[in-house]
Amino acid sequence: MKLVRFNTDSGPRTGVVVDNNIIDLTQAGADYTDMMEIIAAGQTALDSIATTITGCTPHLSLDEAQLLAPVARPGKYLAIGMNYKKHQEEASKLGVAEQNHQVWFNKQTTCVSGPFDEIDPGVTEKLDYEIELGIVIGKPAKGVKKENARDHIFGYFVANDVSARDWQFHTPTFTMGKSFDTHGPIGPWIITADEVADPQNLDLRCLVNGELRQSNNTSGMVHDIDSQIEYLSTAFTLESGDLIATGTPEGVGVAMDPPVFLQAGDVVRCEIDGIGVIENTVKL
Amino acid sequence: MKLVRFNTDSGPRTGVVVDNNIIDLTQAGADYTDMMEIIAAGQTALDSIATTITGCTPHLSLDEAQLLAPVARPGKYLAIGMNYKKHQEEASKLGVAEQNHQVWFNKQTTCVSGPFDEIDPGVTEKLDYEIELGIVIGKPAKGVKKENARDHIFGYFVANDVSARDWQFHTPTFTMGKSFDTHGPIGPWIITADEVADPQNLDLRCLVNGELRQSNNTSGMVHDIDSQIEYLSTAFTLESGDLIATGTPEGVGVAMDPPVFLQAGDVVRCEIDGIGVIENTVKL
Repeated sequence: MKLVRFNTDSGPRTGVVVDNNIIDLTQAGADYTDMMEIIAAGQTALDSIATTITGCTPHLSLDEAQLLAPVARPGKYLAIGMNYKKHQEEASKLGVAEQNHQVWFNKQTTCVSGPFDEIDPGVTEKLDYEIELGIVIGKPAKGVKKENARDHIFGYFVANDVSARDWQFHTPTFTMGKSFDTHGPIGPWIITADEVADPQNLDLRCLVNGELRQSNNTSGMVHDIDSQIEYLSTAFTLESGDLIATGTPEGVGVAMDPPVFLQAGDVVRCEIDGIGVIENTVKL
Repeated sequence: MKLVRFNTDSGPRTGVVVDNNIIDLTQAGADYTDMMEIIAAGQTALDSIATTITGCTPHLSLDEAQLLAPVARPGKYLAIGMNYKKHQEEASKLGVAEQNHQVWFNKQTTCVSGPFDEIDPGVTEKLDYEIELGIVIGKPAKGVKKENARDHIFGYFVANDVSARDWQFHTPTFTMGKSFDTHGPIGPWIITADEVADPQNLDLRCLVNGELRQSNNTSGMVHDIDSQIEYLSTAFTLESGDLIATGTPEGVGVAMDPPVFLQAGDVVRCEIDGIGVIENTVKL
């Protein structure tokens, strides 16, 4: 199931994508109409929604909908750095030392934005893109072993881990340059885990103004999704609706020779086959 | 005004501390009874509450109340590292390089716990304490200059930035070792900004089992509170209810020679004169 949030005259609504249309869960009279409640209730909510929408006529087309971030404000939004081999290599040329452990940082939850929203550079002069497979946590995870990690994944989305490279490298914690407002476009929807046969075998790519910049497959991760959930949940609880960005492959602008950064008007398109596409324009 | 959250048979309540007693805002019939709503409404809420509680008989004594974290789940909880000169020195001996910029990291919001709650070591073998002055953001802050920073502070609290040193130093981002569940005790209340004459001149100390380990004054900060709010808000929006831990002075256990870590049953007491005291026991 593809779950979207979208804007209406009566405020944000949650819906299900069927072909190129959306069934509005509020109009359909569903028992669950709030994305965070759906994620928390998991299969119970999905079963209930499936029954409600059977035979239901869609309420609007995807084309006319203004899609919002599928999770408006997660409890936390964690992201892993240097998690594709060739990206590690390009990063180490820039002075980022390879690490023995998974390198986690936070994207502040205030940075989350819609799948087609503008990216505001703010004060950065080194604006960059990072295509990543995103995970939404379903059942809360604490002390979860690799082999059970998938039980805690509600679904997947496309993330652009937009980065202000100047501010990112102010300190080794990365905190400041990963979280400018609007630097967390996600979407276009959450595709539930049952519809993704193998999340470790998905082609993903990033294009800037139509030019291919990043292209890889999620099989290229250094630490796979299951290991990520095990490691994080050994330390602290992952809750329903928490977001995880699973790392970006090589091809980021800061590692080009010479470095090329995003400019006003640039269109950044992030695609993951079997998941979806988000596209964000840098604010003029 | 000192605003507390506490447990009752009917669930968490918000109250005002008067002498050694608490006025329960729900029982008092106040217009504002939720801490996050009070913080968001700011002076309007405080004025309304002041009128409501005038002449009101307290509902319970502080001694009998089970105090909760004054902010149960902030939107974000940011903390600054190496922000007292002598702590910088002790940290650099441990291989943490001095930085040209403010060093920010996140405490995951799931780590927040009450002022007298137990600290669960979880999987760490290097459990440590850090007394810090905490700030609660009131009016949202974006692009705020130093000279206006105080307009955005709702109040202050005592924080223990409990740290799992082994996990903290897995990577230079610090993310994993700062956020174990229960590693964010805060409180005992929020004291509103109007009652703190000079937040840069407060004595603060940390005692373990009655032994003084940290003792300094907030005048010793490298980057003062106003600079912190300016720097953070240049990059992204600070929202009502966001928490900031403003750094710890020297004397942490990991920097002792030889290092001394917290053990089961240890009692960690964090005091800031004019703000309050929190005390947390390490789980047996």
